Amino acid sequence: MQIPKGFSFAVISAGFRSKNRNDLAMAVSDRPAVSAGTFTQNLYPAAPVLVGRERVAARETARAVLVNSGQANACTGEEGLANCRKTLEMAASAFGLDAEDILPGSTGVIGPQLLMDKWEKALPELARGLGKTDAEGFTRAIMTTDAFPKMAEKGIALEGGEVRLLGVAKGAGMICPNMATMLCFVFCDADVECAEWRRICREAVGLTFNRVTVDGDTSTNDTMYALANGASGVRVRGESLALLKDALVEVLGSLAYMLVQDGEGASKVAHITVTGAASEEDAEKIARTVGHSQLVKTALYGRDANWGRIVAAVGRSGVPLDPNAVRVSLCGVELFRNGRPTDLDFDALLEEPLKGRDLPIDIEVGKGPGSYRLLASDLGHEYVDVNASYRS
Amino acid sequence: MQIPKGFSFAVISAGFRSKNRNDLAMAVSDRPAVSAGTFTQNLYPAAPVLVGRERVAARETARAVLVNSGQANACTGEEGLANCRKTLEMAASAFGLDAEDILPGSTGVIGPQLLMDKWEKALPELARGLGKTDAEGFTRAIMTTDAFPKMAEKGIALEGGEVRLLGVAKGAGMICPNMATMLCFVFCDADVECAEWRRICREAVGLTFNRVTVDGDTSTNDTMYALANGASGVRVRGESLALLKDALVEVLGSLAYMLVQDGEGASKVAHITVTGAASEEDAEKIARTVGHSQLVKTALYGRDANWGRIVAAVGRSGVPLDPNAVRVSLCGVELFRNGRPTDLDFDALLEEPLKGRDLPIDIEVGKGPGSYRLLASDLGHEYVDVNASYRS
Repeated sequence: MQIPKGFSFAVISAGFRSKNRNDLAMAVSDRPAVSAGTFTQNLYPAAPVLVGRERVAARETARAVLVNSGQANACTGEEGLANCRKTLEMAASAFGLDAEDILPGSTGVIGPQLLMDKWEKALPELARGLGKTDAEGFTRAIMTTDAFPKMAEKGIALEGGEVRLLGVAKGAGMICPNMATMLCFVFCDADVECAEWRRICREAVGLTFNRVTVDGDTSTNDTMYALANGASGVRVRGESLALLKDALVEVLGSLAYMLVQDGEGASKVAHITVTGAASEEDAEKIARTVGHSQLVKTALYGRDANWGRIVAAVGRSGVPLDPNAVRVSLCGVELFRNGRPTDLDFDALLEEPLKGRDLPIDIEVGKGPGSYRLLASDLGHEYVDVNASYRS
Repeated sequence: MQIPKGFSFAVISAGFRSKNRNDLAMAVSDRPAVSAGTFTQNLYPAAPVLVGRERVAARETARAVLVNSGQANACTGEEGLANCRKTLEMAASAFGLDAEDILPGSTGVIGPQLLMDKWEKALPELARGLGKTDAEGFTRAIMTTDAFPKMAEKGIALEGGEVRLLGVAKGAGMICPNMATMLCFVFCDADVECAEWRRICREAVGLTFNRVTVDGDTSTNDTMYALANGASGVRVRGESLALLKDALVEVLGSLAYMLVQDGEGASKVAHITVTGAASEEDAEKIARTVGHSQLVKTALYGRDANWGRIVAAVGRSGVPLDPNAVRVSLCGVELFRNGRPTDLDFDALLEEPLKGRDLPIDIEVGKGPGSYRLLASDLGHEYVDVNASYRS
């Protein structure tokens, strides 16, 4: 893993969760980086979401992100907001930065206030450790119920040299659209203009994170920050911007896949593709109804070629369509056509494919231009295990 | 259990499922009964739904309902429709009835055609057994994944005598609104006019079955038939109609509760009440977002006073509201107010209450007139067990 130029990381066990686990992390750019931010649309945005949104709006650049796990600092009222600002001031002082240049993120339990005495004690030591950890160390420090650290990187050769992108994410529960329920940080050493960077980040999120679902729940803390600091010395303008966007889509796409793969105990990743709808909105509605169906999810978990549940979900999606025009395939085997199951012996045909992790579900609903693609997890015992006892 | 006058039942093991299990049932009224029917809104209605809808529309009265378990006769195309009609004709001939007077219902696996040779063999014997079983025998014959038979009865003393109502239902999976995903049959010996009977049935379903959710999935076969045959000799007109409706709401309400209680492995029944919304539609949207949230459902299963997940669900329901006006109580203990958790020690306060089966969740979202009540099941290992292997 080759970190984009100009970025360094620091982590520490501040005691927010337990003594033996890193739970506070900072990523610092050695120079101002143009910033982009995408945030939860939940009506209860956490304090770091409110503060981060404000800072991204106020400045084109930032120098660092500061992230803790353990306490989400959500539903913490005015005190939570003040605490969030205070942690940024303390970090600024410890790292020799301007507090306005640090973007905050928190993940963990909703409700409790930040443990300010622990922050105060930890921050100077965190600053002393800058550069002593790598991207994986940073990623591990912000994990909660994640089963594995999520990182993706990409280098692109442009006229003028190589530009590197590194994306890291955490998140497994409360994963749904409207800006994935998670934290994601992208570090890039391209020299790119703020407006362009923000545009390609927005577009890339729409094509990736907003198209995954684990449990349909959207968290209070979803945040993506993307920093591009220009340390590569490679100017990205004009046509190269499309290449940068493609690379960003690839990095975020990999992270989005990992989020579903790690969907709090997911054993399967359904790749749901809806085509032929009257509009993209209709296609999305159908894809989400199928992807959120508990019955479809448990069938996938049980390796059951239960096309009836897929068809029933299509039928209740609220999208008007001709039932006889619908075709459904699972793992490339056509299960349903002309209002009837096909004559294939799909239990036999699908026995092996359904043992795999990645299960394509292709749903053609007519001849319209609308299509949509969604990644969805299955629903099994591990999901229940993780979520029935998260707080304890 | 006192069966309403004039109704009798027959059951048989026709071999649709296994040799030792009754899977075909008929309920017959000794005289024409005014009929009411409510059906699934899924775009893939099963053959018996199409035929039943047609017959209820064509005639004010019916004499019988014929129900099988094992094959749902859904997604079976023209052949399925023809088979459904054929079974009614065979039953008419065996029971000495007019085929137009028999209402069909099917439940089971989606896709396979009815096993017509088995129907042909079973129906004459079914007719010979009429009156040799009781309401519970009828109910057990139509069960699929149900853990227990669902029956509710009620007698009402009116001027002129007593009127009796008996409701039976099956259903545990694919339970959601839009006419509960299930089969339900109501037998009543009141003398009531068709239009009035259909009106109070429609209203009662709206207040009961349409307000329960297990998994958000709506089946292809949902059907309620209600027959009132007048055998009590008690005319129900004018003001008594309200009493009859109240009794019907009570009977259907009990059955709806049982559907959630038996929500394919449910251990809890959440009684979600949303008040103070701008409209009933808004209140319903919030209640359904909370009731469908996998994270809320798993928290209830895990006996976890996780108010954060309830609040996060309210916040993503799409209903505009003042976050600080929202108050959330669980089992009567106020957890959230003014955008913050309350100071109560709710883990201690709720430890005992959360062991119970019935868990009230009260959500006040403002000062508006809109309110809604929804029953929802939890989500635990038993749900996964039942649904990951239903077909096998």
